[in-house]
Amino acid sequence: MNNFSQQERDGVYKAIFSRRDVRAQFKQDPIPDDVLLRILKAAHHAPSVGFSQPWNFILIKDLETKRKVKESFNEERERSSKLIDDPKRSAYLALKLEGILDAPVNLCITYDPTKFGPFVIGRTSISETGVYSVCCAIQNLWLAARAEGVGVGWVSILSNNDLREILQLPDHIEPIAYLTMGYVTHFEEKPDLERTGWLPRLPLNNVVYFEKWGARDGNGWQKLQTELNGS
Amino acid sequence: MNNFSQQERDGVYKAIFSRRDVRAQFKQDPIPDDVLLRILKAAHHAPSVGFSQPWNFILIKDLETKRKVKESFNEERERSSKLIDDPKRSAYLALKLEGILDAPVNLCITYDPTKFGPFVIGRTSISETGVYSVCCAIQNLWLAARAEGVGVGWVSILSNNDLREILQLPDHIEPIAYLTMGYVTHFEEKPDLERTGWLPRLPLNNVVYFEKWGARDGNGWQKLQTELNGS
Repeated sequence: MNNFSQQERDGVYKAIFSRRDVRAQFKQDPIPDDVLLRILKAAHHAPSVGFSQPWNFILIKDLETKRKVKESFNEERERSSKLIDDPKRSAYLALKLEGILDAPVNLCITYDPTKFGPFVIGRTSISETGVYSVCCAIQNLWLAARAEGVGVGWVSILSNNDLREILQLPDHIEPIAYLTMGYVTHFEEKPDLERTGWLPRLPLNNVVYFEKWGARDGNGWQKLQTELNGS
Repeated sequence: MNNFSQQERDGVYKAIFSRRDVRAQFKQDPIPDDVLLRILKAAHHAPSVGFSQPWNFILIKDLETKRKVKESFNEERERSSKLIDDPKRSAYLALKLEGILDAPVNLCITYDPTKFGPFVIGRTSISETGVYSVCCAIQNLWLAARAEGVGVGWVSILSNNDLREILQLPDHIEPIAYLTMGYVTHFEEKPDLERTGWLPRLPLNNVVYFEKWGARDGNGWQKLQTELNGS
């Protein structure tokens, strides 16, 4: 059980490399319950600090709720567009940045710091690790969805205060992600912001250091460094 | 290319469900460069807010560095143990919580909020989304490693100030995760803290709500709710 077949391993990399942050390609077809269950279970099996499983998943289909969230998006998008000038501003406003009303299912993932607390193993030195666990669950969900042919888009141009009010979150609960989910007409080859020329993908050797910050070579890393530069 | 074969999909779920936070099972065998490269590339293809790719990966083999990090762990473990009383304290101190010196490769993953900034699309309303992107990269790395048969352990009982000093991080760089990596004798069936009875796995229906916080049923969700309760 420990070893992966070539095809199983390929499946993992395929999910990782072909996963997209979907905004424009949602179809209305409902996601079957068994598919949704598998995706949620995948999220629930993420690593969590001290096995605290500090996440909750709020599934949303209600049109009225989606409309309120969309309103929050519109306000935040307008507000943030004022931070930049033309031509960047116009380019920003021309981008399709969410599919809240297009996606059949919306999903808010939250963090509950009180779960199994107050003493959570591994969270006593770096308290943020609780939130980090929730993010790992989000990525599990995203990859499982991709393997099921379900697209996921993370809408972060939102007011968390609005989300709290709309979803009636208690004060101690922190909204971490608002996701839109559904089948798609297709998955794009590349991320939208790369495809449209907003930003380039960094070469891998740009983000890897050896032994300490900023070091492009290190004892015993020469071969990997050469391969990195050629990759 | 959009559809997954049954085996590819199974591979994704296998990685998700058999991934472990490894502490005690590391072997000394080196991780080949091509394997390490694939794992790092998987991390680099995580979603990132505004395509900001705000992560850096510091690979560590140097024994002196590992020893300093282990010292930080020892201090933090001692400090945190004072937060609880016996018998919990003894149980805590008996747990194997890191494999810093056992794992051939250590890896610090950091967050750089200045990358492609200051205006990062999608980060203008919720600034924490930059860190969330780094966590998604960590989970990609973890799953790719699992598919390669490489174990990963996240050591969070550490002082970030110590990490900053040991790895010479600039002030604006935030350490997010300190990971230990290597081949393993085996992957445990269940998470250590579940296996040893520290905490139980929550039933999936415990963490899922419908339409708003706390709601165990919702319009149009009856069938899923029934399946959830039976799962």
